[in-house]
Amino acid sequence: MSVKVGVIGGGQLARMMIPAAVNLGLDIRVFAENAGSPSALAATAVGDYRNIEDVLRFAREVDVVTFDHEHVPQEVLRELVAQGVALHPGPDALLYAQDKLVMRQKLSELGVPIPEWARVDSVGELDMFLSTNGGVAVVKTPRGGYDGKGVRIVRSGEDVADWFEHVGALLVEELVDFRRELAQSVARNPSGEIVAWPLVESVQRDGVCAEVIAPAPHSAGKIADVADDIARTIAEGLGVTGVLAVELFETTDARLLVNELAMRPHNTGHWTIDGSTTSQFEQHLRAALDLPLGATGVHQPWSVMVNILGGPVGQPMETRYVGAMGDFPTAKIHNYGKESLPGRKVGHVTVIGDDLDDACFVARAAAAHFE
Amino acid sequence: MSVKVGVIGGGQLARMMIPAAVNLGLDIRVFAENAGSPSALAATAVGDYRNIEDVLRFAREVDVVTFDHEHVPQEVLRELVAQGVALHPGPDALLYAQDKLVMRQKLSELGVPIPEWARVDSVGELDMFLSTNGGVAVVKTPRGGYDGKGVRIVRSGEDVADWFEHVGALLVEELVDFRRELAQSVARNPSGEIVAWPLVESVQRDGVCAEVIAPAPHSAGKIADVADDIARTIAEGLGVTGVLAVELFETTDARLLVNELAMRPHNTGHWTIDGSTTSQFEQHLRAALDLPLGATGVHQPWSVMVNILGGPVGQPMETRYVGAMGDFPTAKIHNYGKESLPGRKVGHVTVIGDDLDDACFVARAAAAHFE
Repeated sequence: MSVKVGVIGGGQLARMMIPAAVNLGLDIRVFAENAGSPSALAATAVGDYRNIEDVLRFAREVDVVTFDHEHVPQEVLRELVAQGVALHPGPDALLYAQDKLVMRQKLSELGVPIPEWARVDSVGELDMFLSTNGGVAVVKTPRGGYDGKGVRIVRSGEDVADWFEHVGALLVEELVDFRRELAQSVARNPSGEIVAWPLVESVQRDGVCAEVIAPAPHSAGKIADVADDIARTIAEGLGVTGVLAVELFETTDARLLVNELAMRPHNTGHWTIDGSTTSQFEQHLRAALDLPLGATGVHQPWSVMVNILGGPVGQPMETRYVGAMGDFPTAKIHNYGKESLPGRKVGHVTVIGDDLDDACFVARAAAAHFE
Repeated sequence: MSVKVGVIGGGQLARMMIPAAVNLGLDIRVFAENAGSPSALAATAVGDYRNIEDVLRFAREVDVVTFDHEHVPQEVLRELVAQGVALHPGPDALLYAQDKLVMRQKLSELGVPIPEWARVDSVGELDMFLSTNGGVAVVKTPRGGYDGKGVRIVRSGEDVADWFEHVGALLVEELVDFRRELAQSVARNPSGEIVAWPLVESVQRDGVCAEVIAPAPHSAGKIADVADDIARTIAEGLGVTGVLAVELFETTDARLLVNELAMRPHNTGHWTIDGSTTSQFEQHLRAALDLPLGATGVHQPWSVMVNILGGPVGQPMETRYVGAMGDFPTAKIHNYGKESLPGRKVGHVTVIGDDLDDACFVARAAAAHFE
């Protein structure tokens, strides 16, 4: 009887959709890569998301399909659509999240502010870009990068000669002189309704999101409006359905430039579970089902989310609960049920309150119990 | 690897523990009465909770056992304990929630304010109580009552002659002249830590909780302290582990009297999911595992929860989502995944905010979409 939502991918993003689905009485089903995935509780299929037959068998049993990640190949996505499966986001939108060259081209056409960029096919072309952009730049593989992987800072085309050989065309961008990194999340449903959460600041360490402050300090007024405009323009222009997270640079000369996009709930939006009227996970499900979107107000003036990166192997987060919970009763602890490996995101802590310094301290100190 | 919590009973209370368990990375497993229960997602066993063998088989696979309801017979509970199963709450505490005569006797001993009461074994004894208590009283069957069942207002012993015949000893209480009904929830862990949520007001219709306002209006100061004291005294005195909800009468002469107890998450605490730092469901799991308890502060000055009673058969709540969500984007809708039957609790709506009138209006109007 109830509405069935299928999620391809069994990581922590699918896992965090489970509470939202339970609250709304939705029958959530996950297509996971392996049996012990973070979303095993709701996994009804285990398989390879590149296998059209397996994915199709899963998709036929649900009312709508959405995603834990953007890696499902276009040929699989397009076959699902051809077979009448409702996909949100759809293949056309997902292509922009899968291929950074296609994304940069589209954002240029939409007039969205982005770093100087070019497609380069050879060491020589890259050297040319470097010579007109200060001698240093960022090179990215168009596909498959995440959390700092597939990204290099280069001073010579030779620095990525191996990528030209194995990957082919690359994306080169100016090395942006930025003050800080921000992120703007919005959600859009197929009817075209768009809602935005507050602009947030994300602090990266070693290319991985370490903590998020919502809203971004000193972001009232113009800067929030600009970020909101950018994200709405992208959501509409790319036809995104579901949650869209736009990672932004705030430059030292006070401009916002789009860095990356994610068409799914995103690490910079985890604070919404505890800090906003509607979490990004509930919103993603509402959008995928073309339901009216929920309010995005905040419970308290500040929310601070700190990632927990895996500590010693064989010491699951649960073994530290007595200390962390005893010291910090306001900390909301999220445990993804993943085996702890050094540097792996295994959970996060969110603290909300009316004092930013206090929320930061408590969130960081609680998270430190697990590292 | 992860911590395994077993819940006996597959109703909406077990269901609402699932999101809390997912967030904390706990492996929650439910022993349900039937396959299509509200907590089917986490059900690993289906059986009769009165069957010692079935319950024991389930309990041996988990680290701790707790409950969706208080109906597991004492002989089953005591056999579990004898077999080394960790039960929270335990049999001694649960007895007070199972037998109202035993509960009234214990509360009298603890000096907790309760209505005038007596155990009556015959029509004649009840008539005697009536003659010294204004000619009208409330009679309750000691066991098995809930949501107004097993309760009668009587003016003559003959009004419950059938119960004397079939049930035996009954509890009779003065008919309390009350201004309103309040509820005080606390949680206690086996180490003895106790935390309290704010005192709330509950509005009953036809013996069933219809809505809850947190905190209870006009409850700052003395009345909140008295309620807090009462609930802590009971939690300690009865050795409760987990959540304890104490239903209270606020009398017209400004006293608080204990009406009923529940040793589990309770309808009057559903607002905590959306309105408090720690929900009663997370707290119940923390207490059952003897983890430090979470903070019980509120996100906003007011939280209003309105129950959704089943409307027309064959019209699940999902069919009304477009209207309800479109009109009320701040409403948090909870759907228990139960078949809709007239008068059956199938879900609830919570709205939080800084204006009580507005929160009441929105919560009631959103809930009305489903009835």
